[in-house]
Amino acid sequence: MHVVEVNDPRDDRLADYLRLRDVNLRKSLEAEHGLFMAEGEKVIRRALRAGFLPRSLLLTERRRNALADVVASGADDVAVYIVSEDVAKLLVGFDLHRGVLAAFHRAPLPAPEDVLDAARSVVVLEDIVDHTNVGAIFRSAAGLGIDSILLAPRCADPLYRRSIKVSMGAVFTQPYSRLDDWRCGLGLLRERGFTLLALTPDADAVPLDEALADGGPGRRVALLLGSEGDGLSTRWLGQADRGVRIAMAGRDVDSLNVTAASAIACYELARGTRG
Amino acid sequence: MHVVEVNDPRDDRLADYLRLRDVNLRKSLEAEHGLFMAEGEKVIRRALRAGFLPRSLLLTERRRNALADVVASGADDVAVYIVSEDVAKLLVGFDLHRGVLAAFHRAPLPAPEDVLDAARSVVVLEDIVDHTNVGAIFRSAAGLGIDSILLAPRCADPLYRRSIKVSMGAVFTQPYSRLDDWRCGLGLLRERGFTLLALTPDADAVPLDEALADGGPGRRVALLLGSEGDGLSTRWLGQADRGVRIAMAGRDVDSLNVTAASAIACYELARGTRG
Ligand SMILES: C[S@@+](CC[C@H](N)C(=O)[O-])C[C@H]1O[C@@H](n2cnc3c(N)ncnc32)[C@H](O)[C@@H]1O
Ligand SMILES: C[S@@+](CC[C@H](N)C(=O)[O-])C[C@H]1O[C@@H](n2cnc3c(N)ncnc32)[C@H](O)[C@@H]1O
Repeated sequence: MHVVEVNDPRDDRLADYLRLRDVNLRKSLEAEHGLFMAEGEKVIRRALRAGFLPRSLLLTERRRNALADVVASGADDVAVYIVSEDVAKLLVGFDLHRGVLAAFHRAPLPAPEDVLDAARSVVVLEDIVDHTNVGAIFRSAAGLGIDSILLAPRCADPLYRRSIKVSMGAVFTQPYSRLDDWRCGLGLLRERGFTLLALTPDADAVPLDEALADGGPGRRVALLLGSEGDGLSTRWLGQADRGVRIAMAGRDVDSLNVTAASAIACYELARGTRG
Repeated sequence: MHVVEVNDPRDDRLADYLRLRDVNLRKSLEAEHGLFMAEGEKVIRRALRAGFLPRSLLLTERRRNALADVVASGADDVAVYIVSEDVAKLLVGFDLHRGVLAAFHRAPLPAPEDVLDAARSVVVLEDIVDHTNVGAIFRSAAGLGIDSILLAPRCADPLYRRSIKVSMGAVFTQPYSRLDDWRCGLGLLRERGFTLLALTPDADAVPLDEALADGGPGRRVALLLGSEGDGLSTRWLGQADRGVRIAMAGRDVDSLNVTAASAIACYELARGTRG
């Protein structure tokens, strides 16, 4: 890699790092340029280990040696921008405590079929819009041994900076794909013999442990989770084999946060698989 | 309540609502004035139902009738400030989509003894610093029927705006208290016969389901959860009856997000209690 000192936050070469807090700006910029941003040494090393190609690095002066080994061994055409703390702040829009950022090239996502063929357990996220939830769900799914994740077309981006951080880098290694057709998406799972369990707080649904106790050990299971506000669409609820609920204590709390619900569902599914 | 139209974001009467995004400013302001902020109609109604006393309301012009019943029936000395969308934005520092804010008086917290005496199940949070995690843990604990929550002295504030929102108002109704001495805190639980289970990803710990299967049905259980970065302190780990782990799949993910871990632990504990 080649090192470049930059003193002006408006320098065009730093455009990838502009206004990281501005979600809307970032979404369009990152989609358009096919990039994603990773923050902090640990997360950047995870992205590299997972095979993602860096586009450039940004280090503050105080942290200029943080990734010395990476800088020394990386491809020549990758720029490493060194900026002062002040320039960093003006550029990204907040104090860059960790002092280390990287812009990476996105890799093409595998097709949904490809992440399903080898999987026995799948988490399917309908329209989860919160990046913290998406990141935490990836971390739980990976940590608890779920094979794949499928995202509906409008589910938030796992490679958004906040999702990456909350996932502790699980978004780099956990196999996942995105459906391009929300209406027909579940058909793919059904064709492959998955039992579709729709997670819902609805009192008429089957308790989670009961639903997972049925069926043989070799069964393929997909857990469907719905959005933070309205939950699963009636279409997906209707297409599932059954609605499945985590019992609530009835204390004026109607449902769990989707991160909590997915952790419990993945845990129960993993336990069943272990025997 | 009495209605006041205000046109200047620097008007002193609006000081409670200043720069809601500035976490540090808000922390000191809310502690000093013994208040907390609630956002959105649903959450404000929950706070009122739970018996909290409003100090003032702030409504944007578009939403000026949102809480008409509350305004009509509330105490005369409570002010209802009506501001334009622009003034609201300049004041709080972002677009106030929901158009409804309220400043409430904090109520004195019960003593730790008081929330323990009637409890059979308790969640104890050491130094959870993230308000999203604190809110989601309250929601799970309340939703899954945990009796009480105890906070270590440095655990983040459940009545911070973000915690309230993520908890869906569970922070208003779930019994909780704060330890004023971190070192001796667990003694209170031990005196009351609680079994202290320290949640930790450590591979030497006992699996969660095993740990909860032991002991009679009338047993009192405390689940200890540690901070996002370092986990539980060695002191608390040492004082617990046993370390308890949720099995990880060994895929380069060492631990779960604390919201996910607490949801799983509360779910297992609740299941055991149901029989
Ligand atoms: C916040 S909840 C949505 C609540 C929505 N009002 C509903 O009725 O579905 C987000 C998602 O978490 C899952 N979830 C939350 N609580 C649950 C429970 N008690 N049982 C099963 N799934 C739950 C569901 O997949 C739901 O779509
Ligand atoms: C992000 S973890 C902290 C990780 C920290 N490195 C450690 O070793 O504890 C935050 C908290 O969640 C709980 N936790 C996370 N994963 C867990 C697991 N697999 N088993 C039990 N508790 C877990 C623990 O209470 C932990 O203190």
